[in-house]
Order: sequence, then structure tokens, then C-alpha cells
Amino acid sequence: MSRLSEKFQPLASESVPRYAGVATFMRLPYYPLDEVEGADIGIFGIPWDGGTTNRPGARHGPRQIRDQSSLMRKVHPVLGLSPFTLANCADLGDCPVNPLQIEPTLAQIEQFVDGVVGKGMMPLAAGGDHLVSLPVLRALAKKHGPMGMVHFDAHTDTWDRYFGGCKYTHGTPFRRAIEEGVLDPKRIVQIGIRGGLYSEQDDDWGLAQGIRVMRVEEFYDLGVERALQVARDVVGDQPTYISFDVDCLDPVFAPGTGTPEIGGLTTHEAQRMVRGLRGLNMTGADLVEVSPPFDASGATALVGATLMWEMLCLMSEQVAKQR
Amino acid sequence: MSRLSEKFQPLASESVPRYAGVATFMRLPYYPLDEVEGADIGIFGIPWDGGTTNRPGARHGPRQIRDQSSLMRKVHPVLGLSPFTLANCADLGDCPVNPLQIEPTLAQIEQFVDGVVGKGMMPLAAGGDHLVSLPVLRALAKKHGPMGMVHFDAHTDTWDRYFGGCKYTHGTPFRRAIEEGVLDPKRIVQIGIRGGLYSEQDDDWGLAQGIRVMRVEEFYDLGVERALQVARDVVGDQPTYISFDVDCLDPVFAPGTGTPEIGGLTTHEAQRMVRGLRGLNMTGADLVEVSPPFDASGATALVGATLMWEMLCLMSEQVAKQR
Amino acid sequence: MSRLSEKFQPLASESVPRYAGVATFMRLPYYPLDEVEGADIGIFGIPWDGGTTNRPGARHGPRQIRDQSSLMRKVHPVLGLSPFTLANCADLGDCPVNPLQIEPTLAQIEQFVDGVVGKGMMPLAAGGDHLVSLPVLRALAKKHGPMGMVHFDAHTDTWDRYFGGCKYTHGTPFRRAIEEGVLDPKRIVQIGIRGGLYSEQDDDWGLAQGIRVMRVEEFYDLGVERALQVARDVVGDQPTYISFDVDCLDPVFAPGTGTPEIGGLTTHEAQRMVRGLRGLNMTGADLVEVSPPFDASGATALVGATLMWEMLCLMSEQVAKQR
Amino acid sequence: MSRLSEKFQPLASESVPRYAGVATFMRLPYYPLDEVEGADIGIFGIPWDGGTTNRPGARHGPRQIRDQSSLMRKVHPVLGLSPFTLANCADLGDCPVNPLQIEPTLAQIEQFVDGVVGKGMMPLAAGGDHLVSLPVLRALAKKHGPMGMVHFDAHTDTWDRYFGGCKYTHGTPFRRAIEEGVLDPKRIVQIGIRGGLYSEQDDDWGLAQGIRVMRVEEFYDLGVERALQVARDVVGDQPTYISFDVDCLDPVFAPGTGTPEIGGLTTHEAQRMVRGLRGLNMTGADLVEVSPPFDASGATALVGATLMWEMLCLMSEQVAKQR
Amino acid sequence: MSRLSEKFQPLASESVPRYAGVATFMRLPYYPLDEVEGADIGIFGIPWDGGTTNRPGARHGPRQIRDQSSLMRKVHPVLGLSPFTLANCADLGDCPVNPLQIEPTLAQIEQFVDGVVGKGMMPLAAGGDHLVSLPVLRALAKKHGPMGMVHFDAHTDTWDRYFGGCKYTHGTPFRRAIEEGVLDPKRIVQIGIRGGLYSEQDDDWGLAQGIRVMRVEEFYDLGVERALQVARDVVGDQPTYISFDVDCLDPVFAPGTGTPEIGGLTTHEAQRMVRGLRGLNMTGADLVEVSPPFDASGATALVGATLMWEMLCLMSEQVAKQR
Amino acid sequence: MSRLSEKFQPLASESVPRYAGVATFMRLPYYPLDEVEGADIGIFGIPWDGGTTNRPGARHGPRQIRDQSSLMRKVHPVLGLSPFTLANCADLGDCPVNPLQIEPTLAQIEQFVDGVVGKGMMPLAAGGDHLVSLPVLRALAKKHGPMGMVHFDAHTDTWDRYFGGCKYTHGTPFRRAIEEGVLDPKRIVQIGIRGGLYSEQDDDWGLAQGIRVMRVEEFYDLGVERALQVARDVVGDQPTYISFDVDCLDPVFAPGTGTPEIGGLTTHEAQRMVRGLRGLNMTGADLVEVSPPFDASGATALVGATLMWEMLCLMSEQVAKQR
Repeated sequence: MSRLSEKFQPLASESVPRYAGVATFMRLPYYPLDEVEGADIGIFGIPWDGGTTNRPGARHGPRQIRDQSSLMRKVHPVLGLSPFTLANCADLGDCPVNPLQIEPTLAQIEQFVDGVVGKGMMPLAAGGDHLVSLPVLRALAKKHGPMGMVHFDAHTDTWDRYFGGCKYTHGTPFRRAIEEGVLDPKRIVQIGIRGGLYSEQDDDWGLAQGIRVMRVEEFYDLGVERALQVARDVVGDQPTYISFDVDCLDPVFAPGTGTPEIGGLTTHEAQRMVRGLRGLNMTGADLVEVSPPFDASGATALVGATLMWEMLCLMSEQVAKQR
Repeated sequence: MSRLSEKFQPLASESVPRYAGVATFMRLPYYPLDEVEGADIGIFGIPWDGGTTNRPGARHGPRQIRDQSSLMRKVHPVLGLSPFTLANCADLGDCPVNPLQIEPTLAQIEQFVDGVVGKGMMPLAAGGDHLVSLPVLRALAKKHGPMGMVHFDAHTDTWDRYFGGCKYTHGTPFRRAIEEGVLDPKRIVQIGIRGGLYSEQDDDWGLAQGIRVMRVEEFYDLGVERALQVARDVVGDQPTYISFDVDCLDPVFAPGTGTPEIGGLTTHEAQRMVRGLRGLNMTGADLVEVSPPFDASGATALVGATLMWEMLCLMSEQVAKQR
Repeated sequence: MSRLSEKFQPLASESVPRYAGVATFMRLPYYPLDEVEGADIGIFGIPWDGGTTNRPGARHGPRQIRDQSSLMRKVHPVLGLSPFTLANCADLGDCPVNPLQIEPTLAQIEQFVDGVVGKGMMPLAAGGDHLVSLPVLRALAKKHGPMGMVHFDAHTDTWDRYFGGCKYTHGTPFRRAIEEGVLDPKRIVQIGIRGGLYSEQDDDWGLAQGIRVMRVEEFYDLGVERALQVARDVVGDQPTYISFDVDCLDPVFAPGTGTPEIGGLTTHEAQRMVRGLRGLNMTGADLVEVSPPFDASGATALVGATLMWEMLCLMSEQVAKQR
Repeated sequence: MSRLSEKFQPLASESVPRYAGVATFMRLPYYPLDEVEGADIGIFGIPWDGGTTNRPGARHGPRQIRDQSSLMRKVHPVLGLSPFTLANCADLGDCPVNPLQIEPTLAQIEQFVDGVVGKGMMPLAAGGDHLVSLPVLRALAKKHGPMGMVHFDAHTDTWDRYFGGCKYTHGTPFRRAIEEGVLDPKRIVQIGIRGGLYSEQDDDWGLAQGIRVMRVEEFYDLGVERALQVARDVVGDQPTYISFDVDCLDPVFAPGTGTPEIGGLTTHEAQRMVRGLRGLNMTGADLVEVSPPFDASGATALVGATLMWEMLCLMSEQVAKQR
Repeated sequence: MSRLSEKFQPLASESVPRYAGVATFMRLPYYPLDEVEGADIGIFGIPWDGGTTNRPGARHGPRQIRDQSSLMRKVHPVLGLSPFTLANCADLGDCPVNPLQIEPTLAQIEQFVDGVVGKGMMPLAAGGDHLVSLPVLRALAKKHGPMGMVHFDAHTDTWDRYFGGCKYTHGTPFRRAIEEGVLDPKRIVQIGIRGGLYSEQDDDWGLAQGIRVMRVEEFYDLGVERALQVARDVVGDQPTYISFDVDCLDPVFAPGTGTPEIGGLTTHEAQRMVRGLRGLNMTGADLVEVSPPFDASGATALVGATLMWEMLCLMSEQVAKQR
Repeated sequence: MSRLSEKFQPLASESVPRYAGVATFMRLPYYPLDEVEGADIGIFGIPWDGGTTNRPGARHGPRQIRDQSSLMRKVHPVLGLSPFTLANCADLGDCPVNPLQIEPTLAQIEQFVDGVVGKGMMPLAAGGDHLVSLPVLRALAKKHGPMGMVHFDAHTDTWDRYFGGCKYTHGTPFRRAIEEGVLDPKRIVQIGIRGGLYSEQDDDWGLAQGIRVMRVEEFYDLGVERALQVARDVVGDQPTYISFDVDCLDPVFAPGTGTPEIGGLTTHEAQRMVRGLRGLNMTGADLVEVSPPFDASGATALVGATLMWEMLCLMSEQVAKQR
């Protein structure tokens, strides 16, 4: 562990109770991107939902996830990992965004993640709507080339256009990412897909690219262990991104989201799936589409925070191995 | 497809987003019953809960289900069916009702469904409390004779009387329907039954009639596939009605209902059960007991709308085959 | 009253209870803009919040206002007006919009209102965020020239730019409208203004144009009657628009809005203010910034619907006088 | 004070905190009607909303009011009255009702209040919808003859019929009571009336009977003190009932009700109005139309409980004077 | 059954509907502890959350559980047991507590349970936070000696100290109980354990004592039937307590709790687990950590009430056997 | 203004929208107490409700107030003050507390405020329950001697003991403060007092000490201007503290609080009262009893944040004058 690690510990719960204090991700110290030094993993919010075609609100996700993430503790009881001793983790605050403009904001996000990568950190982002994954991937691809992706979602997000000619929406990020060469479609697996289609051709493009689409019915027929095997086979040991859209979960577990589809995964299944990716060659990860206006209770944000914690544990182990 | 079908298409989401516009069932055009011509399937609300013995509110169900049904798209991804090209579907508005009177309202509903049937439509009704199934069945039995029924519910709804001598309540519709000969008890299967009993004899009458009661414990012991086989064996290929009380689902999936019982089905299971009835000889269907005052979020109504969509897909295929 | 009026009556509550039926504005019949003939007043939604800089959700306003407007009855008890016998009123549905693009949507809205005006109707719009007033004003100004405005709001909405260079936001519509000559600043009165400022110069531009800004403190010092006199003196008897941002009200009366500011008007005061504008030379009106995700109960939408009803009564009297 | 009074004291908050214990009205002991002996004032619930034409739920009012009434303390700080030392007060539980039948339930309620009166108690009832006032008045009129009434409400509740021929609804109780001679219309004052009308003749019948209708606009023009003088002049010193429909208050103070109308009274004004009736010749009182499904927070029930407490203070003083 | 049993029957739902009446546990009669005679099972609340380190509110649990328990009926449909004919059950009200003091309150609770035991009743308690189990166990151990325990929870609650030296918290009761000899650690099984740890040593002490910790992952790997076998093997046929912390369930089933951890049991699984303990040598039971402020809907309390009903059925059978 | 002021500016809303970023009080930078240098006003949270006798939850107040305070802007439009250019303001984080112990926590808070005062800052605290005012006052009295106080509240908080002998509760802080000599009772004014009393002697002690109690009825009879004159006369120009219990407001404006009493102030009135204290010789201030579990919407916290902003403006002017 680096000499700086004492600067990267969560606020001690012995003096300030877990529900208290300024809310940062997992009670970690807040170091703005331009000030942080020595961190291994940068956690940040992307408070933007400008690509949303249905119910908005994911712009409020990072703040509520921070609030709920206070309940995270220090040691993963199943994996036996202690992320804050394995890696220096920090809350980098929120990426600058413009709620009124799409393409300029995509550039702002990409620039921010360039900075994260440039400082040697692995990014863990809290959305925002799913369009925010695109600029994160763009930034990471400069370092890693075309990546594989384990994609948890109810939707494939490989549609082409919305409302006539709009290319950049939360339903299109991965089509763009494949077109731009930042994702390798043959190393993408999409898990939990369901919900009606706009047309019978909706999925054709993605399948033609070689994406492995695992609909929720197949997921349940396989079970967690075999589904994991499929996922690991698809992505292999090359650089891989994990993108978790909270609407992959059933809406009872994640009511606070913009495009709910009934019949999804439980949190227990999601936890097992994420844990099962241990040892993947991760480049970064995101958790998107938590929309607090549709869940004032914060339950969805707690789910989001816990899944970010699960992914953080994997990332911290990878950091420790590579150190 | 009939020449009228262009009049029966959902509002195009390319110009009016899915969350927008006047809320009709599945964004279909609204044609009042006395004006509609050429429709194959009539979707309508029965905004009435006068048979409710516990928590009221199901009278508000149709409106909230309409609102949430906007999220339905056009193609069923698993069944591969496109209901709006297979059948002409319309929103017929709400059936007239009187919240202050029981028997006159039952007559109003029966008369409305007589009109639906008389115009050659198959009815798909949104309740309302479960008593509204009785007049729908009465109307259908004039055409089909005693019907079978696949009945999803936490309760058998075959009690005899409430509060002394009240015959018509949401706990008694199927006893009345059997007594009146509009249902054939030997072709009824009830799935998801659970919850405490008023007395040890509660279920005896129904069992004596020959109803196949599948308690939720048995459902879980069998699993979806074998449960489906039981259901299909009971109803056979004769005319059959599907009645889905949303309280068949666990209350976390359907909090907005009047008589919640913990320990019920998931939506994933319910979707698979409904889909598994594909090819049944359907006479009509209903989805009842969505009570918006107990779920302001609309989550229960989204579940209800999605299950109506699942049933609509089956109905549209049957219509297409019979054309 | 025109020969068509029987086609423009609200659904009879004797057969379909007020809470039931397909939800249209005030239970009026729904005639799409391209089909409507003979209407005097066109009520429509603008389901769009693309100009929102803080909390989104006003795109969902029209639908929830329609739902709550079912509670409106037929006769105004204080003004003694029966709007549905004074004028032919219709629900025109929602204007087409694109949630992903600002300027194209402003053009779509303007085109829609061109159609409303072209068919001889006075527009009554339900937003949407406050930017939607700009295209409505643009369309009306083609007929009426620069208009006066009675503007109820917590904010002046005459800021210049947001996030650098963004000209079109819900904080800038009236600056743009004045610049474009569709509003006459010397005939604008803004009532209920309050809340902190970004800088000490925030209000200078508007005051320099001659806008009469009545801060909420002055409103309370004057009282309703004298405040009304000020408002009527400012706008005179020339063509005047009424724009009501629901955040003019205190947040307890209108929690469902994007930029709440404590210390605002009560609904009783707002009703008296609107009624006191009786006899104004109205060109149209809007009610904006109802954001259902922040008020699942619908209370804010009920307030919005009732204030729309108050404005509709004034409009119907004007229509009747001009006939 | 009678010898029994130690049996009629609220649960001591020194040992069981105010939020705890079995919830009875104002933490008073619960004595079923057929067991109670020696009480002066009987508080009870009427858990029934069978007369509701719009949003149901008032059947759940008594239970939630009991829950919130735990916050009531022992001494009225303005009136200087200690109701539990002035009179023996008891919670009599809930009146038996049948949610499925109107006229039989009216008979059950009347019989229950007969029992209350027969045991020498003054009744204080928690509704239920407003139709429950009718049988309470019927029972009281047997003892007191035609009574005066101070009636707080948004609606006059003197309509004639609903849905064709329905005589007994929550919009008609006082028409029936006047027709039956249990209320003297010339000694009725209705305060807070507002909201649109079904027709221009809605209020004519009541006014023709001599009811003094004080619309909310007049109430605000008069102010509390002069409004009180009007009320006291109307009812005089003859036997008078107080009926408080919680929708008299603005919906922000009472969201949990079935027929909200914006622009109503504040709780501060309502408290002053009730207190100002001190010394009236009271026969009993009710607080109706609290509908918990529309206010899960219980805020409306707290308002209802506090206004019941205000009325109880007046009643206890009258009991003490008459002893 | 004893001669007193007619005094211990739930309120008849034929005259007072299930949602109505003064809310007691399962509509049973309320007999304060110092007045009750002849009861076999005493149900009571412990309205106290003074041991809570995170989100408070469990002090409000007993009242909301009482409210929701009205929905319980009389006969268990799977076990075939009728608890109210097998045993005399009563609601004993709430135990006195002091929200400001920990150790004196523990003494108050122990004294109350001493009284319950002293009158020959088996206790069934509704918390309150989990610290309330400690004084219940202390009282029971005087009669039964060191007991076994089936403990459903997300947390082991065997931590040592919080905030420096605090020994008595809702995270420490079972460490204290083992230290004091009221529980036999080798006869404790903890089911559903999950969530992050404060340190890698968190669980060591408990495991060293011999507690059988079944983490939720193991529970799902075993399945209900084998998990039950483990539990029964651990506790054997010696005196055993059942403690059910509602956070054992996934937060979607029990949002109203203080320390939610995602990935927990479903209610269906919990019901099967409790039923599977039939025939255990029970000494008493509790259901704790229902926190109504975090679930205004009451759904969590309904779950709590139903699980109490399941445990009550087991207890009643044991009482009947021992009579 | 000091040379450090650029370090004390709120996050620029041009790049990070107002809803975004790590939530600190008013978007100010967060400097832990032991690191801060050069600040004039220290804003901090006291996340503790250990003195609460009724509904808990105020421990969560600071975090939700921080979240809502993001909406505050930079310039006060009525007072013409720009607090962040008049004084260096910082968020000091939350004071350490122990939710399980009362007196040790009071010592922790006093020590924290000692540090604030020792570094030359004026304290502005966000509670927590009202007991937290006591240690703040203790710390300030070391510097200022016995202080006057303007106290906004529904309750006098001068009770003596609760639950037998408990001296330290949220109902007793000012009795203790007067006894200890940190407050001068003759310079205390209490505004908004209302609600029932435990006994007829409740207020006697305070009045005997010379406290000026202005009940809410007197407040409304006087009006804001005269009430302000009374308050200013009582406290004079000697050192004075302002304590604002959010339950001074009517519960519709502040539902999220532990002991709501209907009939209170509006936010408009409260804002005018606080502003009217401009020029007072302030020593510090607090805003207490915001309880988020009872208002998930955050509306109460927005009210609290805005009132803190109003007090901050007064404090900043005083700091600027004294510099």
C-alpha cells in the first residue's frame, strides 16, 4: 500500500456515526480531481440526464447514492476483501456538466475521465443516465483500446436514433461506442434484457455485431453460476468494463429509475453476479440510472451504493495485484 | 388484418414521447363503445369498488393503469407477437358505474360487456375490485356457455356471504358465478392462494365443486412449468376466461391493492405463467384490484398494465387465428 | 353559443363518476388539433422540460393536471360564470416535442400554437417548464403584436444566459420575448418574486426595460385588492397574456415544482388575483412548472388545474362577449 | 366531578411515552358501549365511507385519528380548560357498520348513538364520510328536537340526489336532516363553502330554507371575530350541533380527504373559530372526512385529532356546568 | 381450552370490519398486565429504540404492527392450526419504557416480562430495536436456564462495544446474553447474516463461542428444507427462543427498518422457515426492528404482524400440548 | 474582507449545477474544525437526537439540510446583503456525538463549539433536537456571559424533568441554561408558543423567571412589526442568541419534525421575523428539530436551510461591521 493511504480512509464511525457527516461516497475523503494525489481508484458522480427520453431525474443520482453509501462498511464478508487497505480510494466530487446541452457535456465528461486516467486512477462512476457511459468509455479506450463489457440492463441500449435524428440518447450509447471502436462487440455480454420492443428488428443490429444478449428468461433458466460462466467466456481476460444500469434489477428493488421493466433480477442475484466477476481485467465501472425523484426513500440509491461497493472490492483487488 | 387497422394504432412515440399525450390504454385510440367500429379487442375500465370489504380504492385503478400503460411498446420479445398488427385494439373508455349501488352497477357492467361482445370484440377489462368479474362473466356466458377459468389470486373468492347476508362482494364473485352456471367449477384453477382463513371450512365449498386450488406453497414446489401443465390440464381447450387479481403477486410487487397477503408470486413468475397460457381458447380477461391510493408511485399499475399487455398478446394471436 | 356546443361538453358525471373515464382536461372531449372544428378555446399540454436547469419533471405536468382536473365542476360560484356554455372548449391533446432538443422543440410548439390561433381558438396551455411560454408568445404576437403580461412567479425569468452561453432556459424566456418584441416590457407586471439572487445585478435589466416587479413582500404589504389595481394599471386594456408559474405559490401549496422558494402566495390569494383580472383583454394563458415527480400525491396538479379553471372562466367570458 | 373519574384518565405519559400504548382517542381508556358506566362524553369512531361519491378511504379515519390523538395533552392553554377533570371521557370504540350497505348502516349508527345518549353521554364522533352525521343527528333529535348547527365545510352537502336517484350520499346529509326535521335550517350556518358548482341552482334550496351560507371569500372579508359573531347569532342559545368536515381546511392542511378544494381555511383560523363557540348549547359534535389513504403521514389525522380536542374542551365545560 | 377462552377471542369481523375498531394485536382483547387472568400467551409491545446506533424509529413499531395485524384471520391454512382456540391469547399493551435511559429501561422490560412469565404466559414481543431481546431473555432464563435461539437477522448482533465503551446497543444483545449465561451459544443458529463488516474480526468471537452462523449465501445454497434441518439440529429439543429481526428480510420486503442490507430473504422463505420450526420447545419469541418512520405505508408492519402470527400459531400448539 | 476569502466561496454554479456536487451547507467549502483557518462564521451540524421524548429522527437533520441548502444563492434580495463577500463562511462538518449517551455528548458538543469560538468564528448550528442548544450556549457563555435569546418555537422548552428524573431532554434545555446562568431569563423572548399543556403549571416557572412568552395567538394579534418590536425590546443591544425550532412553523411548512403542533407560523412570517432582527448583537444561532424521516421530500429541510441563510445574512453583516 502506498505511503499516502492514511489520507484515503473513510471517516471513523466511532466518533461520527455512520449516518452523519458530509456525505461522500462511502465516507471517503473528498479530493477534487485537480487536487488529488496518490489515489488508485477515483469515485465520482456524473449528475446529468440529458440523454433521457422518458422520465428524467438521474441527474440527482450521485448525491443520493453518496448519502446512502454511508452505510457501507470496510470488509467484504464473502470475498474477504478490505478495499480501503488494498487501494487508495477517493471521492473526486462531481464531473462538470451542462443540463442544457448534450454533445458539449459528453466532451466535459470525457475530459474529466481523461484526468482521472491521467492521474493513474481507475474510474468508478455514478450516473446520471446511461448516455454518460459513452464518454467514460471514450476516455478509457485511449488507454486500453477496444474493450469488452459486462453490461447489466433491462435494455440493450443499442438503438440507433430517437425522435427522428437524435444520435445521443440513453438508449444509444453502446451503438455509438461500437461504431467508434471503443467497445469490441464480440466481447460484450448483456444480462437481464427484457421489455417490449419498438419493432421486431430492435435487437438485430447488436446481434449482428456479435453481442451476446442474455435475456432475463435465459438468465433464470441458466442460474447464476452458469450465467457467470457465459459472461466470463465472452469477455475473457482482456480489458473489460462493467456497466450496471440499475433497471437491470426488478423495479421493486430499484423503483427510482427512468424506464422500469417488471420481471428483473433480485439484488441477491446481482450481488452474486458482480462478485462472480472477481479477477476480471477491469478498466473501470459505472452504476447508472438511479433517479431519486422516483424513490424519495433512497432504497434504490442504497442498492446502487452497495453494488458500487461490490465493484469497488473487485477493483481494489486488481489494483493491489498490479501494484 | 382488417382494412380499419390504421385507425387502431398506438400514438407514434416518435412525435409524442411515451410519457405524454392523453393517457389511454397502451396509447391506443379512444373510441367510446357506441362509436367504435371494426375493433377486435376492446380494452376498458370498470372504475368501481363497491364490493370491497376492507381497504377501498380500486375504483381508481383504470385511470392509473392507463397512465402507466404508456410504457408498453409494440412487439413481445419472447413470444414474438405484435398485438397491434394482429388485431384491431381500442380503448373503449370506462364502463358507467354507480359507486353507491351494487346490484344496479352489476347490471350496468353486464350491459356494457353485452355491447362489447355484440360488436364482435373480445373484452379485456381493468378493475375495479374483483366483484366486477361477475358481470363480465355473465355477459360472456351468453355467448360461450359455462366457461373455464385460470384464476390468479391470493384468495379463492368463493366465500358465501359477508356482514350477515351480503351476497355480492369482492370475496364472493366466483361462488355466484358457479351457482349461476356461468363458470364450470371443474374447469377452474386458482393459483397463488394463501393467507389465513376465517374458518376451517372456508375452502370446502369450492373444493367440493371441483375447483383445482393451487396454494402458493404448491406453486413453488411445482415450479412454473409444472404449474402451467396443471393449469392447462384443468381448463383444456374449451372456452376459458383469465382473471388476474393483482394480489396474487407478493405485496412488494403490488402494494397498491386492498387485501395484501405476504408470500406471493414475483412478476417474473407471473409473466411466465401468463405467457405459458398461449394458445388457450380465451373468451376474455381481466386484471383487477389495483388500488392507486395505496401506491401513489404507480408501480402496481405498471405491473397491472404489463400483465394486461401479456394477456393482450395472447388474445391478439387468437383473434388473428380466427380471422 | 355556436351550433356545435353540444360537442364540447364535459363528460356527464351522472353516469361516469368524476374520478373515472379517460382523463382529459376538465373532462372535456379530446379533439386533436388537426381534427377540431368550432372550438373557441383550445386547452393543451406541452410535455417538455428541456429548459430546466435544476430539478426536472415538468414534462410530466400535463398528464397529471389532466387527471386532477376531473374534479372541476361547471359553474364558478363567485364569478357566476359557466365556461362550457359561454364558449366551446376542447382538449387538443399534447403538443409534439422532443425531450432531447431545445430550439427544434420551440419551433414545434410555436407551430402548434400557430395552428390553434389559425383555427380561431384562444390557447390555454399546461406546461412543461417556463421556457414553453416563449413559443406560445411568439405565435400569439403574430396576431396581437407586442403583448402585455401578468406574470405570477417566484422568479423574474429575465436572466440572460446559463452555463456559459445557453440562451434558451426556463430562467430566460421573458428576456428573449422582450428582445424579440413579442412582449412589451412596460406592460409586464411580475407578482410574487422572491428568493436569493445570483448577483446584485440580477434584476437590473428587467427594471431598466420598465417591467413592474412586485416582490412578495410588496404583495403582502399591498394586499390583494391594491396589488390587483397595480396589475391592471400596468397592463391596461391592450392585449395581455397571463402566465402562471406554479412556484409563485408557497411550496406547501405547490411542492411539485422544480425551483421551490419558501414564503410565497396561498392558493386563496392566487384565486383572488386571477379572478380580479376579469375583463382583461386576454390573448391566452398558461400554467407551468408543475412537476409530478416531486409530488406524487397530485396536490400541486390539483392547484394547477383549479387555477387553469379560474383562467378558463375569464377566457370564456371574453369569448362570449366577442361573439 | 363524579366518583368514577379516576377510571377516565388518559394513560400517564410518565411511564408509557405519548407515542406508545394501544392507540385510543387521546390516550383515554377504552370502554365498549355496552360496558361503559359513568361517562359524560363518549368518543367513538364511525369507520364507514359508503356514501362517498368520489375518492373513498374515510372508513380508515377513526383508526388514524386515534393514533395521532396520542399527542394531545391535558390542559388547553388558551381556554384554561382541563377536559379530563371537567368531565368523564371515554373511548367507546367503533360503531358497527357494513361497508356494503347504506341504509342498514345508517340504522346501525343511529342505534349506537341512541345507546350513547341513553347512557347520558354527549357524543363526539370521528368519521367516516359526511353521511354519518345524519344518523347521529337523528338520534340526538329524539332528545333535543330540531337542532341548530355550526357546519364547517367546503361544500354545503345539501344536494338532493346523486347518480340518478340516490338519496343518501355524503353530499346530501343535511338536506335529508332538514327534510326529516332533525335540523332547523334557520339555525344552520355553513362556513368555508367554496369550489365549483354542478349547476347554477346548486345552493338555491338551502338558501330558500334559510341556511346562512358563509362562503370562504366572505369568511376572509369578515375575519375570525366577525365570522364568529355571525355564527353565534344564527344558532343562538338553543341546542346546537357542531359538524366539522376536514375539507373546510385548505388541502395543504388536510390532504387526506376525499373531495379537496383549494383556497380553504388554515388550522389556526379553524382553532380560533372552534374556540370562539365556547359556551354554545352543544348537543354533540363530529369530525369527518379524514381519509388516511390520501395522507399516509397522518398529518390530516393530527389536525382532525386536535380539532376534536378543541371541541372536547368546549363539551367538557358544558358538562361541568350542567352537573 | 380453559373456561376463560370466550374472553380471549378476536373482535368479530362480521359486525366491526377488519380495518376498524381500536387497534390491538390481531384484534384480540386488551388486558393490561396487572389485570389479565387466564391467558396462555401474552402479546405486547416494547416501544423503545434507545439502543439504536443508526436510523431510529423502532420505538413506533408496536403501534403500527398492531394496526396492520388487523388483517390476520383465525385459521392457518397450511399448518391447520387455530391459535385462538388452542390458547388464550391477549394483548397486554406496551411495556413501560424510558426513551432517555438505557439500563433503567432494560430493567423495566425485564420486570414486565417477569410479570408475564409469572402469570403463566408465554411472551410474544413486538420491538423496538434488537436490544429489547436482552431483557426478555433475562426474564425467561430465570425459568428456563440458558436457552437456545433461532435468530433471523442480517447481522449477528454479537459485537462488543459501540462508540467507545457502550455495552448495550442493538448490535450487542446476544454477546451480553451469552456472557450472562442466558443463552447457550452452542444452541444458537443465526440465519440470513450478510452486509459488510467493520473489521475482519467481527464474527470471530461468536464463532469461537460455537454459534452456528448461516450467512445468506449459505441459506440460498442449502434451500429452505436443508436450512431448517441445520437449525433444528442446532437447537435440539431443549428450551429455545425465536428472535426475528425484520432486517433478515430483503429491504424491499421490509423497508421500514434501521439498518437495511440488500440481498436478504423473501417473505415466502421466511414464512416457510418459521413454519418449519413447528414443534420446537419454544420459550417465547420476538419480532423486532420494524421502524415505521421509514415505511409510512405500513408494509413492513404487515410483514411483521404476519410473521408474529406464524410464530403465534407454533406457540399456541405448544400451549395446547402442554395443557 | 480577509485575504483568505477566495477560499470561502460557494461552488460555482456555472460549471457544477446547483443540484450537484458533494452536499455542503450552501455549497461552501468543507474545512474540518481542526484544519480551518481564517473563517468568520462556522456552519456545522449536530447529528444527535438523544434528548427526544417523542418521535426521533432529528439526528438526520444536518445531512438533509445540507442537501437542500444547495438551492441558496448569493445575494439577499430584500436586505441587500451578500454574506459570502461580507464574511468568510465554511462548512465545518458534523460535531462528534454518541447516539447512546446524553451527558457525554453534551460535553462533546460543548468542546466542539469551544473550538469554533476559539478560532474566532461565530457558530451557526444545524440540529439535532433542541437539547443541542444547551452545550452551544454553554460554550458561548464562556465568552459572552449570560445571553439574551430570541427563541422561535411551539414549546417553551423550560419543563423540568421527564420520565421521572431526567434532567436533560429536548423539552428542558432552557431551564437548564437559565439555572446554569448561561441565559438571562429577562432577556429571553419565546415566539409562537402553542399546544396543550401537561399541567396548568407548565409555564409558571419560566414566567416567574421573567421570560417574555408570546403565544401564537398574541403573535397574530400583534402582527409581524409589533411582534418584532416586542422582541427587540426584550433582548436589547446586549449579546443575544437566536434559536429557531422548526416546529415554530405550522406543520404544513415543517412536517419533518418530532413534536408537531398545528396552528403555527408561515414561512413568510418567519422570514420577516428573522430579517427584522437585523442589527441585533448576535453571538450565534441554531436551527433545530428538522427530522427527515418524517419528511422524505426534504421540504422541511429546505425551509430550515432558507432560515439558516436568513440568519447567516444577519451574522455576516455583524462580522463585517466588527472587522
